[in-house]
Amino acid sequence: MYDVIIVGAGPAGLTSAIYTSRRKLKTLVLSKGLSDQVSETPHIENYPGFDKIEGYKLIQNFEKQVRDFGVEIIFEEVVKITPKKNSFVVKTVSKKSYESKVLILAFGKIPRTLNIPGEKEFTGKGVSYCATCDAPLYKNKTVAVIGGGNAALDAVLLLSKIAKKVYLIHRRDEFRGFEAEVEKVKKRKNIELVLSHIPVEFKGNKVIRSMIVESKKTNARKEVKLDGVFVEIGSEVKTDFVKDLVKLDKNGYIIVNSNCETSRPGVFAAGDVDNTPFKQIIVAAGEGAKAGLMSYNYLHGIKAEIIIDWRKFKEIGG
Amino acid sequence: MYDVIIVGAGPAGLTSAIYTSRRKLKTLVLSKGLSDQVSETPHIENYPGFDKIEGYKLIQNFEKQVRDFGVEIIFEEVVKITPKKNSFVVKTVSKKSYESKVLILAFGKIPRTLNIPGEKEFTGKGVSYCATCDAPLYKNKTVAVIGGGNAALDAVLLLSKIAKKVYLIHRRDEFRGFEAEVEKVKKRKNIELVLSHIPVEFKGNKVIRSMIVESKKTNARKEVKLDGVFVEIGSEVKTDFVKDLVKLDKNGYIIVNSNCETSRPGVFAAGDVDNTPFKQIIVAAGEGAKAGLMSYNYLHGIKAEIIIDWRKFKEIGG
Repeated sequence: MYDVIIVGAGPAGLTSAIYTSRRKLKTLVLSKGLSDQVSETPHIENYPGFDKIEGYKLIQNFEKQVRDFGVEIIFEEVVKITPKKNSFVVKTVSKKSYESKVLILAFGKIPRTLNIPGEKEFTGKGVSYCATCDAPLYKNKTVAVIGGGNAALDAVLLLSKIAKKVYLIHRRDEFRGFEAEVEKVKKRKNIELVLSHIPVEFKGNKVIRSMIVESKKTNARKEVKLDGVFVEIGSEVKTDFVKDLVKLDKNGYIIVNSNCETSRPGVFAAGDVDNTPFKQIIVAAGEGAKAGLMSYNYLHGIKAEIIIDWRKFKEIGG
Repeated sequence: MYDVIIVGAGPAGLTSAIYTSRRKLKTLVLSKGLSDQVSETPHIENYPGFDKIEGYKLIQNFEKQVRDFGVEIIFEEVVKITPKKNSFVVKTVSKKSYESKVLILAFGKIPRTLNIPGEKEFTGKGVSYCATCDAPLYKNKTVAVIGGGNAALDAVLLLSKIAKKVYLIHRRDEFRGFEAEVEKVKKRKNIELVLSHIPVEFKGNKVIRSMIVESKKTNARKEVKLDGVFVEIGSEVKTDFVKDLVKLDKNGYIIVNSNCETSRPGVFAAGDVDNTPFKQIIVAAGEGAKAGLMSYNYLHGIKAEIIIDWRKFKEIGG
């Protein structure tokens, strides 16, 4: 029997583990692997404390720190969680069972991909899924943003202040984003709208050099030369296996209050898998610390000063 | 005219600056200096990414990163903030004025000190103000906790699992903490209560070696040999100068919702100065990132999905 099982080994889960282990809680981390999203980021410049660090290096630092505090990490995907009276039984894909008094759900999100030739090859080599993270790398360069929602509009506006030229490739003729944003996009001189087009291939040599787009109307193809592509077509969370355990929002994200409490006592959530709007490593790590400290409080019957009462929260967030 | 003025140069303020500058907002950081609380911590082991780092080194890393992004940092204490129609005028102690469209308040808290001989000398050399941060350094050692509130009880319970022996020095005969906590403290065999006593001097040689305590009843003094002292008599925030600008809680902390919004549009708060219960570097940095991104959204008229509606929040938090 563990005090705490943490599902996920990204910035949120591993930071939770630092905090629970330092408070002497018997902690197990279960995860398919270390965070792909962090590992696959070539250079991180916005994690405070490091000018610039490779993603795989940063997440390995987290892992080492957690292991040094004596936390057990088992790389097995969790497939089922069953609540018992005062504990939770966690089953993994290899049919093993683990039990704990407290759960921290921190298994992140997965950016949606285009699944076109060249996409995987050039990920981290010109293809990015996070404009907030990577936009500053494209000063005076030519880039494209793929998508038509708020994330894509936000990315294109941000990039238009940094890059020389920004293409916005969108499969439809109209946008799902806020109208004010759309107006701004149309006014910026260095943004070129490529509407009713879809990307069909990324090409390059070690790094991306161009993209082939196809008209949805005529099927005509053209090649766009560029230095970077931002795929901003949303993310998804695989929370189906916890949908009876905790309350999810309409997009499947786990609803938490500002103390990382979910709708079920003893279950906390942190990082990209929860409904906090900002998906950043430092934000996830901060939440991980909260979830770790809240777990300790929960196990010791300490009621933290409630900032946001869950019952009130349900009225608007549920 | 700046886009954003950030008041405070600790983990929250400097992380805000990383995020605002990377989004091309013209940013100014105003602060008395770099965070004292971080600078004076000899070893930090719970900031994810670093196994162990000296506090002054960590905060200097933050500062360098912020300056590298082109942010202006001016070390002057802010004494007055006046809201104008669409901006804020910020006055410093040297009577200079700066103006910005958005404000981020991140000037931290100050731990209360005992003001007794040896306290300043041995701070970071056996005298600590954060059990969550420094408890793991005292494995099998003898320590004392000063205080009688929840923070002191929490510290003493945590330390009783790590240290060999824990003294709890409290000026009164009874505790202000939760009853359940008090019961647990009384049951732990390695905790010795020293009630109706106050510390009057810390003694040592390079590091702390002992403490002199005085009975409040008889004035008799005795010497307690120890390896570390945790001063857990609370913290204070100097928020008087913003009390007409933003809503404060009963202890003077700035009330924020989970997106770091204060009661006044265009003013955000992050880190120890706000009413988030967990006062940790990584939590403050995570909030700083949120406040930075929210500033951008505010300036661009982007409404982030509201997780906690401020109006609902006031009902319970105000």
